[in-house]
Amino acid sequence: MKSDNKRPLILITNDDGVQSKGIQVLVEAVRSIGDVVVVAPDSVRSGMSSAITSILPLRVALLKQEEGLAVYACTGTPVDCVKLAFNEILDRTPDLVISGINHGSNSSICVVYSGTMGAAMEGCIFGVPSIGLSLTNHSPHADFTDAVKYAEIIIDRVLKEGLPKGVCLNVNVPNTDNIKGVKICTQATGRWTAEFMKSQDGLGKDVYWLTGEFDNFDPTDEGTDEWALSNAYVSIVPVKIDMTDYQTLNQLKHWEI
Amino acid sequence: MKSDNKRPLILITNDDGVQSKGIQVLVEAVRSIGDVVVVAPDSVRSGMSSAITSILPLRVALLKQEEGLAVYACTGTPVDCVKLAFNEILDRTPDLVISGINHGSNSSICVVYSGTMGAAMEGCIFGVPSIGLSLTNHSPHADFTDAVKYAEIIIDRVLKEGLPKGVCLNVNVPNTDNIKGVKICTQATGRWTAEFMKSQDGLGKDVYWLTGEFDNFDPTDEGTDEWALSNAYVSIVPVKIDMTDYQTLNQLKHWEI
Repeated sequence: MKSDNKRPLILITNDDGVQSKGIQVLVEAVRSIGDVVVVAPDSVRSGMSSAITSILPLRVALLKQEEGLAVYACTGTPVDCVKLAFNEILDRTPDLVISGINHGSNSSICVVYSGTMGAAMEGCIFGVPSIGLSLTNHSPHADFTDAVKYAEIIIDRVLKEGLPKGVCLNVNVPNTDNIKGVKICTQATGRWTAEFMKSQDGLGKDVYWLTGEFDNFDPTDEGTDEWALSNAYVSIVPVKIDMTDYQTLNQLKHWEI
Repeated sequence: MKSDNKRPLILITNDDGVQSKGIQVLVEAVRSIGDVVVVAPDSVRSGMSSAITSILPLRVALLKQEEGLAVYACTGTPVDCVKLAFNEILDRTPDLVISGINHGSNSSICVVYSGTMGAAMEGCIFGVPSIGLSLTNHSPHADFTDAVKYAEIIIDRVLKEGLPKGVCLNVNVPNTDNIKGVKICTQATGRWTAEFMKSQDGLGKDVYWLTGEFDNFDPTDEGTDEWALSNAYVSIVPVKIDMTDYQTLNQLKHWEI
């Protein structure tokens, strides 16, 4: 897309698909801030993490082009969308990458599985300030009013101040009418349990459906994203793309192999 | 699988599929160390990161059961395999999760996209010492002799000493006859560039195939996995599942929103 160089260029993607309400309300909200290019999956790609498509070819379709907005649908994953945008679609490096607004929470360990956050991390890998936005409500008709309000504040801040190299933001907005404010948080420790529902297909063969419950290992820790969300605060976790554990690095150096 | 409680129980998975050479040589190597349960994708799942399958049901097939070894194929991702193993297949918590041996490197930023490492991280999320193993050779017929030799040394060490909570290992073995030893490393900073080959399908429509070249941002940094591999050393990066950037956390706390 040819874009006006004086306005910020904002790349938007998600993992719920280009038609979802969360991405549409986000696009409308940020059009006043800058030129917007959407490159998003053509349908739902939840739980795709940072998956990339190497065995199949990818296709891209231009769905809409108007003043300050272009919308593309892609057959790939959220990360494929970001890669295609940077490599093939955008005519200049964007000022910001936003992924969302996701229908459902991406707090705690869900950051690892999240396609929303996979896309935000990919923007960060390209060296551009990147934000993943999620609302803790899975409904396709969820009310994003407050999520948009906080998204605008955080986007404004990131456009003005930038983000440190190699760090993106994982923003989760609680699904409540009485949000108390924003907390800068750590990723809560926890994991999913009882993760499958065993069922049968139409021929009587066993199948397993992903389900489960989240087990928060330390619900009393007030510094975590889970605590913030449970207490009606928006959580912001700064997420690193360098996954090295530097503390363990030094411990392991005594290994003599 | 009913297993002898006196021997270590080792869960093995990968992202190249249950039939690949890399997982088969690994299974043969570790059978002398403990009882082995393999739960691996039924075909190739490269680049699946920590993706999970929520929209489709999963199926599991028992391919082989003999003294000290059971082999299952699963229709899902590498992380699905680990989740199914812990939730539905294993009769006790394994002592070790090993993912690999991958046909191809998973060094530097590839840790983010890697299904091999997604599975290792999942074992770590379950609280079990976990190792991702990769050989820097994509050939289906690659020679894994040295990779197996170093895998055995590292597995022995991890079984004896364990790993810190929330940390797994990303082990890459260089494809050379003259391996000089092992280095404990950081994840090299870098990213992929020129990532797509534009082509056409049989109907003349544009398609994009993932390709690209790795751009190492600091090839002279001797502490990185890329440097180690380029200099004929096995690289071991301790990888965290807590992705919080604690340094940025403190910087952002001045944000008043």
